[in-house]
Amino acid sequence: MATSLKAEARDAEPTAASWVRNAWYVACMPHEIEGKPLGRTICNEQMVFFRGIEGQVAALEDFCPHRGAPLSLGFLRDGALVCGYHGLTMGCRGKTEGMPGQRVGGFPPIRSFPVIERYGFIWVWPGDPDLADPAKLRHLAWAEDEGWAYGGGIYHVASDYRLMIDNLMDLTHETYVHATSIGQKEIDEAPVRTRLVGSEVVTSRFMDNVSPPPFWAMALDGAGLPSEVPVDRWQICHFHLPSSVEIEVGVAPMGQGGYDAPMDQKVYAMVVDMMTPETDSSHWYFWGMARRFAVNDQDLTDSIRDGQGRIFAEDIEMLERQQQNLSRQPDRRLLLLNIDAGGVRSRQLIDKAIAVELA
Amino acid sequence: MATSLKAEARDAEPTAASWVRNAWYVACMPHEIEGKPLGRTICNEQMVFFRGIEGQVAALEDFCPHRGAPLSLGFLRDGALVCGYHGLTMGCRGKTEGMPGQRVGGFPPIRSFPVIERYGFIWVWPGDPDLADPAKLRHLAWAEDEGWAYGGGIYHVASDYRLMIDNLMDLTHETYVHATSIGQKEIDEAPVRTRLVGSEVVTSRFMDNVSPPPFWAMALDGAGLPSEVPVDRWQICHFHLPSSVEIEVGVAPMGQGGYDAPMDQKVYAMVVDMMTPETDSSHWYFWGMARRFAVNDQDLTDSIRDGQGRIFAEDIEMLERQQQNLSRQPDRRLLLLNIDAGGVRSRQLIDKAIAVELA
Amino acid sequence: MATSLKAEARDAEPTAASWVRNAWYVACMPHEIEGKPLGRTICNEQMVFFRGIEGQVAALEDFCPHRGAPLSLGFLRDGALVCGYHGLTMGCRGKTEGMPGQRVGGFPPIRSFPVIERYGFIWVWPGDPDLADPAKLRHLAWAEDEGWAYGGGIYHVASDYRLMIDNLMDLTHETYVHATSIGQKEIDEAPVRTRLVGSEVVTSRFMDNVSPPPFWAMALDGAGLPSEVPVDRWQICHFHLPSSVEIEVGVAPMGQGGYDAPMDQKVYAMVVDMMTPETDSSHWYFWGMARRFAVNDQDLTDSIRDGQGRIFAEDIEMLERQQQNLSRQPDRRLLLLNIDAGGVRSRQLIDKAIAVELA
Repeated sequence: MATSLKAEARDAEPTAASWVRNAWYVACMPHEIEGKPLGRTICNEQMVFFRGIEGQVAALEDFCPHRGAPLSLGFLRDGALVCGYHGLTMGCRGKTEGMPGQRVGGFPPIRSFPVIERYGFIWVWPGDPDLADPAKLRHLAWAEDEGWAYGGGIYHVASDYRLMIDNLMDLTHETYVHATSIGQKEIDEAPVRTRLVGSEVVTSRFMDNVSPPPFWAMALDGAGLPSEVPVDRWQICHFHLPSSVEIEVGVAPMGQGGYDAPMDQKVYAMVVDMMTPETDSSHWYFWGMARRFAVNDQDLTDSIRDGQGRIFAEDIEMLERQQQNLSRQPDRRLLLLNIDAGGVRSRQLIDKAIAVELA
Repeated sequence: MATSLKAEARDAEPTAASWVRNAWYVACMPHEIEGKPLGRTICNEQMVFFRGIEGQVAALEDFCPHRGAPLSLGFLRDGALVCGYHGLTMGCRGKTEGMPGQRVGGFPPIRSFPVIERYGFIWVWPGDPDLADPAKLRHLAWAEDEGWAYGGGIYHVASDYRLMIDNLMDLTHETYVHATSIGQKEIDEAPVRTRLVGSEVVTSRFMDNVSPPPFWAMALDGAGLPSEVPVDRWQICHFHLPSSVEIEVGVAPMGQGGYDAPMDQKVYAMVVDMMTPETDSSHWYFWGMARRFAVNDQDLTDSIRDGQGRIFAEDIEMLERQQQNLSRQPDRRLLLLNIDAGGVRSRQLIDKAIAVELA
Repeated sequence: MATSLKAEARDAEPTAASWVRNAWYVACMPHEIEGKPLGRTICNEQMVFFRGIEGQVAALEDFCPHRGAPLSLGFLRDGALVCGYHGLTMGCRGKTEGMPGQRVGGFPPIRSFPVIERYGFIWVWPGDPDLADPAKLRHLAWAEDEGWAYGGGIYHVASDYRLMIDNLMDLTHETYVHATSIGQKEIDEAPVRTRLVGSEVVTSRFMDNVSPPPFWAMALDGAGLPSEVPVDRWQICHFHLPSSVEIEVGVAPMGQGGYDAPMDQKVYAMVVDMMTPETDSSHWYFWGMARRFAVNDQDLTDSIRDGQGRIFAEDIEMLERQQQNLSRQPDRRLLLLNIDAGGVRSRQLIDKAIAVELA
């Protein structure tokens, strides 16, 4: 296997911007705005999210125009957001609807952000509102099809969101970071292939005739398949702009066709990772797993989510400490190996999209 | 009611100084220097407070001239402050009185601050000592008259002290921040009047024929008056330089004359708020209540202090989060409504006094 | 006794560097690298320490050349350090030994630091490796002689390491900081003498006919000597570059010759203090006591270490608060008294050595 050893200057010469602005990012999950506003910083903007009278989601800057209090400390009344300090009532579009004892007609609106709810998530567009188009939100087939089940969660990670993309586009880290759950030495040994397919970066790895690691043995059990036999395993990572990685993962008992085995002879799932920048050195990590086996088994959904949550939490310390190291040596060049190709190509897509925005 | 909608530049063009320097500020309460020194930062000065041999209070910079240790880590011996590191003995005026094995005659004095004890508080003058005059301390009638009872406490608040002045000079926030204790919708609805009376800013509001909210029902009970009848309620806020707000508050059962009712037919009290800047974005908040009913009932004093402490603690998160929001957008203009007139006028007095100092 | 009252400019005009770079500093104790790597910042360098296959100690920068993860989050395998992120295997000299699926021959080495193990400590040379010479490590007789017993520990202190040198070269602080264990008023009263002896600064104090303070009474008991009689006590502090203070301490029952008493008629020990800069305002403090009495009594070793640990912990708050005070007033001149001569002369040695390095 050839070693690609180029100390590229990509870390030494970052673009001025760290993320694409004109794009849909996951802001939160519906349960986070259940009956109360949610304050969250996204792409360096303090935002407040809440539901209006008809259930539609609103996203505004988290700043009361009266005295600057965070609107997210307030409460909802009749579909409007009431500031918890002096009772200014804010509508879904950033227009003040009322203020005790004041005529509010002349109040200038505060900033609002385009927002949509789809696929079980609230999405926000931090850039130019005139460019926001729901049609630009990529279709997530697994989120709308009865043939899939989904469970997931959210983590706050004190690292640049791109370190998480690197992490997910190079799964050799599983052998080390997740040694007791999904890691196995064959991940290191199997060749990996990275290519650009349309607008996505795809990194794939196939491991034939391996023992299923504990997480996958559990999944096989859950699907009613034998879990103590050799399996064929696959990992196919798909990066999409602005910042998501979906990973087709699964195992099939050997001899059934591996990735191409009939659906009832394999456990096939999609690891869903959507990273939303908070600041230059932190992000919100929405993670989950969509699966095509035993889709009506809620206990299995819960069990997988718990297991995945534990596994993905193992990445956090590593990424946060990596961020600290990189921040101390911002000009230092890193090695780029062929296993890094997925992250490198994904960052190239991001950089190109940022350059277009800034042009 | 007219809306005064001027986005004034007062937040965008702050004066260089944030507070009046040549004035008496509350430094601490006597129990805080009981038998030991107290280190406290006031107006950006690290100070140490302690009592000398005859009980007089001293205020010095909290910096041992020998090796720079904080004197407040030391102890008192014979009315002098002994540094806890190497035993330098510091007198009340900042003159070194002794040092083991050293002749101290030539030691230059450290900085001392004019300080007086009056009205149950220790007051310090952070500015030019030559201008310090105890006569400049405003007379607090409630603190010396047997006809009043007082109880209070101290909070540290991570906000500019002027945000607390704004807060206290616009009591419409009670409806929202203190909804379960002293808030009621009639506060929002009653007209408010702000005017300059001599050297003080006065903001007054009268609410007739309202239900007493829980705190005042308790007070009526404590005073032996009926608590389940409609009352007339008043709030008259008085701002004085450099940084205090006294609020005449009370209720009288309807028909007794309201604010002008005979003393035994109303519960009449003075909310006492004295804000002492710590840094540009934090302050010490000395709060309390002086009352003219049931003045010998110590249980009632304790009960009121506990209740007031809980209520005033509700303001802290709001002000600290407001401070964070404003710090992130220092140039942003806020709305100024007529309910804000009390805060605006108070800040004008402060700004004018600062300008005089700097002239 | 004369008072030396010169407000020297040494705090106002610090040299650009705060420490000697080309010298051996204590990095850690052997138990800290038992079976796992240790990450530690020394002289502003993030380092990782571990043992190679034959037990030799290695010190490298704590930065994986592949993706910048801290190597100290990894693990040891066959005497090499395996990065916990993607499995890069790092050898003792900073050369990559392996990486799953990669040829590593062309990988540039990472920085390694000269390191030696001697006297029960791991020592590191943060400066120019070409100048590192184990012969430059000062001989520590107490560490190799069966006639001594040693026990000690490590503290992290958020102060410039030189404040600890000052602290140790002026033991009058014992009277105040350690009043209940080793302090006594005679320390303040006894004259102190400071002189340069070869390359070391020596500060000595002899106190005759005093009561043994609690710590020393315990030591006399431990040595089988009378503990309730008057004693002669001595303290002889020796500063050596780059940053250690050894203090000959002890007591002998009065009339036995004091410091010169026969070894079985005194308790004689060496307080060992080795300060290793972490950053400009923090250091690692390796402290301990080597003694020449009851050397085979492990219970006494444990008891002394516990007592010393409690005593030395008392210094930490004082030094950290002193550091904060000095950081707020970096240009302020301090008093320099004759009791400070030990610290002043030690700093002069440091400054001179730094100047030579920078020349």
